[in-house]
Amino acid sequence: MVEDEELKASVRTIPDYPKPGIMFRDITTLLGNARAFRRAVDQLVHPYAGGKIDKVAGIEARGFILGGAVAHQLSAGFVPIRKKGKLPHQTVRMAYALEYGTDEMEIHVDAIRRGEKVILVDDLIATGGTAEGAVKLLRQIGAEVVAACFIIDLPDLGGADRLRAMDVPVRTLMAFGGH
Amino acid sequence: MVEDEELKASVRTIPDYPKPGIMFRDITTLLGNARAFRRAVDQLVHPYAGGKIDKVAGIEARGFILGGAVAHQLSAGFVPIRKKGKLPHQTVRMAYALEYGTDEMEIHVDAIRRGEKVILVDDLIATGGTAEGAVKLLRQIGAEVVAACFIIDLPDLGGADRLRAMDVPVRTLMAFGGH
Repeated sequence: MVEDEELKASVRTIPDYPKPGIMFRDITTLLGNARAFRRAVDQLVHPYAGGKIDKVAGIEARGFILGGAVAHQLSAGFVPIRKKGKLPHQTVRMAYALEYGTDEMEIHVDAIRRGEKVILVDDLIATGGTAEGAVKLLRQIGAEVVAACFIIDLPDLGGADRLRAMDVPVRTLMAFGGH
Repeated sequence: MVEDEELKASVRTIPDYPKPGIMFRDITTLLGNARAFRRAVDQLVHPYAGGKIDKVAGIEARGFILGGAVAHQLSAGFVPIRKKGKLPHQTVRMAYALEYGTDEMEIHVDAIRRGEKVILVDDLIATGGTAEGAVKLLRQIGAEVVAACFIIDLPDLGGADRLRAMDVPVRTLMAFGGH
């Protein structure tokens, strides 16, 4: 990964948020910068622009912003992966680990046709618990997960390696050390 | 408004959700249909493609999907309006009415520079309580709200008229009667 320094500089770091010792990487300053937002989307999807991607799956809520733009750029459909109880039709549900305890995410059971090529999108990958759950959900309803794309990687937390161990190619645009 | 019947047919109606008597308009089937998603975005932004829109504001959570795509299409920045407690930097907060009681939404205080031209985006307008709060927030931090865009209008609930009474031009692509 060759980092785009201008793009990286558009991310705002907020020390000690949400609690002491955490350096929070705030992507809203990147999204709000028209030039940075476009570059992030273009760079993320560049390897997939030639192949036919059927759908882009985004993880609630920040993954919806980037996922909507990526789907538009690739002329693909968009599929939301939501917190439980938010989707109105029949769903498949998956538990995933949080820092304390677990939560559940859902996808519409008919959101993807068997064999469709899907890219998973979120803003940031940390431990990868949410992304792992999302990949399992997508595969359960028949998706071929072509790649998982994130703007930010926190490699010390091992999430990208966790996805690669599931045979999911991972694409990220920049990395920050620590948590 | 001349409705695009193919686009309208891509919206799924779920009767009696989330409670008896409500016809829920499920936009996930539109978003998942690559052709319909692209058409919806293109039709929504068509009047604004010439003018210079600085930023697109999307309302959490479904407005993030459409807002991300609209911002990308217009080469604008994206600004999230979130439920309280989700944004990491200094915010401005606004109460808005729910069916029972109220809730609060937030925007980063530095998300928009004074005088920037902003389009507000959400998937659907019903009573307009959330959208009205969002317009107030945007104006409070200095935005010129050029338009509010929604795929679906429920005109019987009066939300679009409520925004027009605030001098916000409203653009919608289709209407459904009832609630």
